Amino acid sequence: MADFDLLIRGGTCVTAADTFSSDIAIKDGVIVATGKDLGSADKEIDASGLLVMPGGIDSHVHLAQPSAPGTPQMVDGFETGTRSAIAGGTTTVIPFAQQPRGAGLRETVEDYHSRARGQAYCDYGFHLIITDPTAQVLGQELPALVADGYTSFKVFMTYDDMVLNDRELLEVFDCAKDCKALVMVHAEGYDAIRYMTEKLEREGKTAPYYHGVSRPQIVEREAAHRAISHAQLLDVPIMIVHVSGREAMEQIRWAQQKGIKIYGETCTQYIALTQDDMKGFNMDDSGSKYVCSPPPRDHDSWDAIWEGIRGGVFQTFSSDHCPFFYEGPQGKMTGKAKTSFRWVPNGLPGVENRMQIFYSEGVGKGRITLNEFVALTSTNHAKMYGLYPKKGSIAPGFDADIILWDPNREETITQAGMHHAADYTPYEGHKVKGWPVMTLVRGKVACEEGKITGSVGDGQFLKRDYSAFVD
Amino acid sequence: MADFDLLIRGGTCVTAADTFSSDIAIKDGVIVATGKDLGSADKEIDASGLLVMPGGIDSHVHLAQPSAPGTPQMVDGFETGTRSAIAGGTTTVIPFAQQPRGAGLRETVEDYHSRARGQAYCDYGFHLIITDPTAQVLGQELPALVADGYTSFKVFMTYDDMVLNDRELLEVFDCAKDCKALVMVHAEGYDAIRYMTEKLEREGKTAPYYHGVSRPQIVEREAAHRAISHAQLLDVPIMIVHVSGREAMEQIRWAQQKGIKIYGETCTQYIALTQDDMKGFNMDDSGSKYVCSPPPRDHDSWDAIWEGIRGGVFQTFSSDHCPFFYEGPQGKMTGKAKTSFRWVPNGLPGVENRMQIFYSEGVGKGRITLNEFVALTSTNHAKMYGLYPKKGSIAPGFDADIILWDPNREETITQAGMHHAADYTPYEGHKVKGWPVMTLVRGKVACEEGKITGSVGDGQFLKRDYSAFVD
Amino acid sequence: MADFDLLIRGGTCVTAADTFSSDIAIKDGVIVATGKDLGSADKEIDASGLLVMPGGIDSHVHLAQPSAPGTPQMVDGFETGTRSAIAGGTTTVIPFAQQPRGAGLRETVEDYHSRARGQAYCDYGFHLIITDPTAQVLGQELPALVADGYTSFKVFMTYDDMVLNDRELLEVFDCAKDCKALVMVHAEGYDAIRYMTEKLEREGKTAPYYHGVSRPQIVEREAAHRAISHAQLLDVPIMIVHVSGREAMEQIRWAQQKGIKIYGETCTQYIALTQDDMKGFNMDDSGSKYVCSPPPRDHDSWDAIWEGIRGGVFQTFSSDHCPFFYEGPQGKMTGKAKTSFRWVPNGLPGVENRMQIFYSEGVGKGRITLNEFVALTSTNHAKMYGLYPKKGSIAPGFDADIILWDPNREETITQAGMHHAADYTPYEGHKVKGWPVMTLVRGKVACEEGKITGSVGDGQFLKRDYSAFVD
Amino acid sequence: MADFDLLIRGGTCVTAADTFSSDIAIKDGVIVATGKDLGSADKEIDASGLLVMPGGIDSHVHLAQPSAPGTPQMVDGFETGTRSAIAGGTTTVIPFAQQPRGAGLRETVEDYHSRARGQAYCDYGFHLIITDPTAQVLGQELPALVADGYTSFKVFMTYDDMVLNDRELLEVFDCAKDCKALVMVHAEGYDAIRYMTEKLEREGKTAPYYHGVSRPQIVEREAAHRAISHAQLLDVPIMIVHVSGREAMEQIRWAQQKGIKIYGETCTQYIALTQDDMKGFNMDDSGSKYVCSPPPRDHDSWDAIWEGIRGGVFQTFSSDHCPFFYEGPQGKMTGKAKTSFRWVPNGLPGVENRMQIFYSEGVGKGRITLNEFVALTSTNHAKMYGLYPKKGSIAPGFDADIILWDPNREETITQAGMHHAADYTPYEGHKVKGWPVMTLVRGKVACEEGKITGSVGDGQFLKRDYSAFVD
Repeated sequence: MADFDLLIRGGTCVTAADTFSSDIAIKDGVIVATGKDLGSADKEIDASGLLVMPGGIDSHVHLAQPSAPGTPQMVDGFETGTRSAIAGGTTTVIPFAQQPRGAGLRETVEDYHSRARGQAYCDYGFHLIITDPTAQVLGQELPALVADGYTSFKVFMTYDDMVLNDRELLEVFDCAKDCKALVMVHAEGYDAIRYMTEKLEREGKTAPYYHGVSRPQIVEREAAHRAISHAQLLDVPIMIVHVSGREAMEQIRWAQQKGIKIYGETCTQYIALTQDDMKGFNMDDSGSKYVCSPPPRDHDSWDAIWEGIRGGVFQTFSSDHCPFFYEGPQGKMTGKAKTSFRWVPNGLPGVENRMQIFYSEGVGKGRITLNEFVALTSTNHAKMYGLYPKKGSIAPGFDADIILWDPNREETITQAGMHHAADYTPYEGHKVKGWPVMTLVRGKVACEEGKITGSVGDGQFLKRDYSAFVD
Repeated sequence: MADFDLLIRGGTCVTAADTFSSDIAIKDGVIVATGKDLGSADKEIDASGLLVMPGGIDSHVHLAQPSAPGTPQMVDGFETGTRSAIAGGTTTVIPFAQQPRGAGLRETVEDYHSRARGQAYCDYGFHLIITDPTAQVLGQELPALVADGYTSFKVFMTYDDMVLNDRELLEVFDCAKDCKALVMVHAEGYDAIRYMTEKLEREGKTAPYYHGVSRPQIVEREAAHRAISHAQLLDVPIMIVHVSGREAMEQIRWAQQKGIKIYGETCTQYIALTQDDMKGFNMDDSGSKYVCSPPPRDHDSWDAIWEGIRGGVFQTFSSDHCPFFYEGPQGKMTGKAKTSFRWVPNGLPGVENRMQIFYSEGVGKGRITLNEFVALTSTNHAKMYGLYPKKGSIAPGFDADIILWDPNREETITQAGMHHAADYTPYEGHKVKGWPVMTLVRGKVACEEGKITGSVGDGQFLKRDYSAFVD
Repeated sequence: MADFDLLIRGGTCVTAADTFSSDIAIKDGVIVATGKDLGSADKEIDASGLLVMPGGIDSHVHLAQPSAPGTPQMVDGFETGTRSAIAGGTTTVIPFAQQPRGAGLRETVEDYHSRARGQAYCDYGFHLIITDPTAQVLGQELPALVADGYTSFKVFMTYDDMVLNDRELLEVFDCAKDCKALVMVHAEGYDAIRYMTEKLEREGKTAPYYHGVSRPQIVEREAAHRAISHAQLLDVPIMIVHVSGREAMEQIRWAQQKGIKIYGETCTQYIALTQDDMKGFNMDDSGSKYVCSPPPRDHDSWDAIWEGIRGGVFQTFSSDHCPFFYEGPQGKMTGKAKTSFRWVPNGLPGVENRMQIFYSEGVGKGRITLNEFVALTSTNHAKMYGLYPKKGSIAPGFDADIILWDPNREETITQAGMHHAADYTPYEGHKVKGWPVMTLVRGKVACEEGKITGSVGDGQFLKRDYSAFVD
Repeated sequence: MADFDLLIRGGTCVTAADTFSSDIAIKDGVIVATGKDLGSADKEIDASGLLVMPGGIDSHVHLAQPSAPGTPQMVDGFETGTRSAIAGGTTTVIPFAQQPRGAGLRETVEDYHSRARGQAYCDYGFHLIITDPTAQVLGQELPALVADGYTSFKVFMTYDDMVLNDRELLEVFDCAKDCKALVMVHAEGYDAIRYMTEKLEREGKTAPYYHGVSRPQIVEREAAHRAISHAQLLDVPIMIVHVSGREAMEQIRWAQQKGIKIYGETCTQYIALTQDDMKGFNMDDSGSKYVCSPPPRDHDSWDAIWEGIRGGVFQTFSSDHCPFFYEGPQGKMTGKAKTSFRWVPNGLPGVENRMQIFYSEGVGKGRITLNEFVALTSTNHAKMYGLYPKKGSIAPGFDADIILWDPNREETITQAGMHHAADYTPYEGHKVKGWPVMTLVRGKVACEEGKITGSVGDGQFLKRDYSAFVD
């Protein structure tokens, strides 16, 4: 009998701190040894010339979340969403279980489990989304669910059906403090966006382009400052997600320098798209493909985001994957969306391209090191969201969630090559250098050269520990 | 017939820029000439050894504003309030006409005129307070009243009966932009204060001291940032009033450096009182004497306020005079106030001591120049609120609102020496050097050595022009 | 006999704080009264429709300073220099008496007096330039001269024949502290400039354009920071002159916010010229016309300079007038200058255009108020350099140094219209709105509509008091 | 034959990114595998309950550097210095080979090799110190030595016998850029220190305490800014070493945020000592024990240093070990030192206590994570100074420089327990929690429970690669 199930040989291993040449021995889905001449294995993979890295963890994806009846529905469930993830080198996702107003959290979680169970190609956890922070929710359900491994939740400072007012935010933050949950904050100011939207509509400015105009950086900055202030007041750590530009970045940096426990996330679209991608002042223009919130900004904000990445302002780099069809009866521009950007579904597909673009723009262009790449795409997500030391590194004892990365492979991103259910990618035509050539989920080859070799249902639910960033 | 009604001879004249030896000739209440050997006059005043300065303008005082029935009422109307003003060297006040929710602005203004008419010792204008920004108010009444000389108004981001939400703030700001009014903002966050207050009450922390704890600087800073963001979004200048400490000061400075049109006011209590003055954890302690909002802070904030004064962050220095009784059935600690700081009326008397304390702490201690003193107590108020060039300087054509100031006079502030209706002064025992020895209102001696020589009704209503700080 | 020598009637008077309609009565060269119906006068001037302002004070001009033998000499002495000044609305200049290394200060001052005596159209003082801070100079001569009315002096952190090292700077600063002189600092780093210059020369980059490249903003910022640090160490106020761009401006602002007593001056060329004006990579190009130090920067620095002006970072706006011929055997590009920018004389003429351009760009474009214009061109200079309250305002007792300004006059600056001795103006073709139509020096019309009506020798030497900005 | 020479079993391994339970297999001094059940070994060490970390790298120590004849000599050579290092958990040191003025670099290096050869208990490299940057040195010797593995060098901005002027700094920086060396900068301003020193001496303030007064933070900040500016001008990365307080820290942070490639180091004394430790105004007081440069500051600076550590401003934490006797004829207070602090040798012993104090104050008090501890004491030093991936982590292929750390051991630092040659420790009486219980140098137990088990001469010279922080 062989010593191991699998040996990955001859690669260059990369962790968030180190780069070293080593084989990796895997047994029962777990890394059991690193080194040379480790023993025999049932199967060997030759990683010569390749980087061997922890599989990506995407802590910000939306899968199978229902939209309002009569409006376009999110097109990726767990099957296509996690398929797209593993094709892009991501081996763990943390989507959201969104509380419908009026519903309980426990039933919400059960509902999402039923959507995910047996459907995933890779492991997954759930963040909660709190839209209705009743006494019942904050006093009983939320603490109980945190104890059960749902140790983070998101709140929204905008969107009609999700916005919490300041009173609610404070209550929710206080509750998080008590039960040691990590709060994720969507920071955009509701009233200002509404006000701007109505103004633009009155002026007939309804094309998708005006989505960006209706929620400028000021609006994101103000909400970030407000959330930071609430967090400081109650001394509770928060994570401001999907930071889009200079203004909000500077608020977070300012807070961090004052010693306030604020964390930050940014996403692919904020280093690869700009507001100009939404251009097109006619309703039939393709601007809607890029409609998401906060909207992509400009080149100065790209610079600011990189400044924040290099300077430690951001701990995690995610996709905020949130896919809709562009064409057809379920397309982004159908129904009321034809009348105003206000009704265009917010969100882009991106779980598959996150690692490719970040590697190419970051490591490839000398902006970050290989180790920082691993930290920002995997290790920090694991630590931030209580998956460490099960996920997030290459060392004995970690799950064998591993990707083989060819640093020299040049590719062009096209919809034809995608594994998601959406009918377009906003990164169409984007050229990258550096590509995931093999993805292993707990020791099993789940995707090889873009071909899915794993099975639906391989992915397991992850009960998560407390965040390492929450005291 | 004499050339002039009055000659003030031999003094050292001070304006916001200049200091020079000159007589001042006055006719029909107006300065008609400055110089030496100007001619004959019916009356002469010897100002040798004294500073001759423009009378103070206090653009932030509360007079005759009714409180809710059954709660302590403000004790100064126009008679005692303006009497106190002239005794302290202030010759123009701009109190507020506060819209009761549900009421129209025009009727509000009429009501306040009836309270003031014939009652004032010095001239006065009115800021409006908008508590109910209906379409009627914003579309018709407010623009009409601005055109009629009520060119500024205040909005509140806190207080149960006055708070505007962000939507309302945006609407009001936009309206101000259209009609060229200057918006004054009371910047403290309503929800956070409520949340903190309830928490403190649950913990039994109800003494006046906790008033300060319930609204820390974070809460003021957050609201300031929010107001700044709204103003920046709509490109409308605003004035953040009664800034109390470092945190809000730094926000305003940051905004000004970005080129956003934000102005700032600070007040006597923020350079002369601290939160410790509210000490006393028993209900019968005198802490309530100092309860106002924002609350006085600490010595670091005194430093920050002076930093802001010297650095041009603040344009005006006011009193926020808002007087209540401390003792008796109308006293601050009566009724529900006995159960919690929440019910203690907010406000301090101070119109009489503003110039004394600011001069002594500022000019006397070398922190500001004489000219800056005049700018911050008079000239800038006149320019900010559309009273210039009628008020605010010593030069031909200006109203002869003039004070004679003895820079060497040492006094101790005591309630015994006050002219207001309140039964205490929060500055009791405060020693000052520099004192107003004579106050002239439009050429008439209104107060001399603390003795009132003017008559009730001498003061006139001032229709105001647009602010010089609004484009 | 008339009451007054002169009455200026019907104008709008402007001071650093106030704007008011008033006549001005003048006797014996001094303003004796302002007001209406002041009396009779031998002469009247109708100022209807015009602004009546204090004559400009240019506290940074170079006149009659000898250059090294065999190199081009400065072309304006006191006659042409002050002629140009009054034509441009400036009624006081403070040029420099530069100590030659090895010479004593007293003899230096005598030498400069001999150059000026009887030659000036307007009043003048002298700043000293200390190039050789011997024990004799610092221990005896400098304190004696300060007591005699030479209350400010300049030091250089660059230039072969003037640079002081840090040790010398510290000694000089300490001496200034003792004798209450104000130190003006030319802040550019000598070694860095030398190093860059030699590098460029080795690369054959010798055209005038490279003058700017050889002393980038970093070099100015570093020297500014160094001077600030020395000043802070010894607690002595300093004035950093001719600040050219964002980097140095931000250092000064940072220092001021920390409470360090640092003052700042900027000049016409830093809001009206850019490095691109030096373009031309051939030796015969006209780039040398614009060679001065620090060099003009770019549009971002224009913005930064205005930011500093509005934000109170800069107290004075000067010309740094320093004129050379462009053409001919004494021209900027003669002799060794043909071989490298290193040898091109540094300096531009500008005393005549300072007020015109600053008014047009500042007041005309809404960046500053009329009062700020007066403060920055006149009043603050007077206070900064001990000429106040003799110079710098319009009020009884001040010298009748007055200009009449037509705010609506549109002109184009051309060499043909200039009154200096130079053969070009760097502002050729610059269009301005706002123009000095009459200049009075101590009550005498010195220039009217560009025609010189004063006499050589009208100008007197000014013994100066201590700076109001030095404790 | 056993599979391995040594197995370390049952410990918790810590790297700069990861924490995981694993055995470590070692062969021929190198880590060959990590994991469980790795095979057999000649020797096993039980690490249960202990942290297993990469041995410390102290990139800033002074060993065997001769002082001027007739003055106290440094007391640690390589034998006692490296003995002290391994006793404190440090397995690599990088001392300095200091060029005497007039000497060549190659002969300098040979001299230092002769001092080190066969004398060290642990591995070592050499930084050069450039005191005499002649054309020969910069053009030939330095590039050749960099190519030979001396890839970093230090320059001084102060000290009579080492100070480089700005011109020399620029030349040296430019040379470093060409040959890809990393420049370490001692940033304190020479002239200002000299000036302050002479002033204090004139005032009779000569006790050791005034050492701190003579070189306040301003002086360090100014030099830091100057070095940063030179580095920015030439686009060459530099490392500012031994940063002592808030002022210099903020300069480095400011530079990093602007994208300038500036790195920072801080040391034990700046989080554990203050200027008050130098107290004692008599010559026989013990203040001289703490005399080093920059001097220890105050508690606000401790806070600032931690701010910089947490915020990524500092990459490395070192000791700046530089030991002298306090007592006896070679003591710090002998000879001229009795007459003034100016002559007291600068430097403290500390290589042995660096890890203990940093762990206790950092990890123990929740200011940094375990992983950050490893990064700042080992991994970053290895990357910064070209020792990576040979040194600095625990992974296959790295040298088996390993320490076993008991996180719960409480100790008090005393001279009795020290292994250095000095006769005192400045940290006497300092209580720590966390202690190195075993140190392995390339797989050999070099120190166990304070007992030296290694042999003199075990340590080898390290040719170093280019810094990973130099492009």
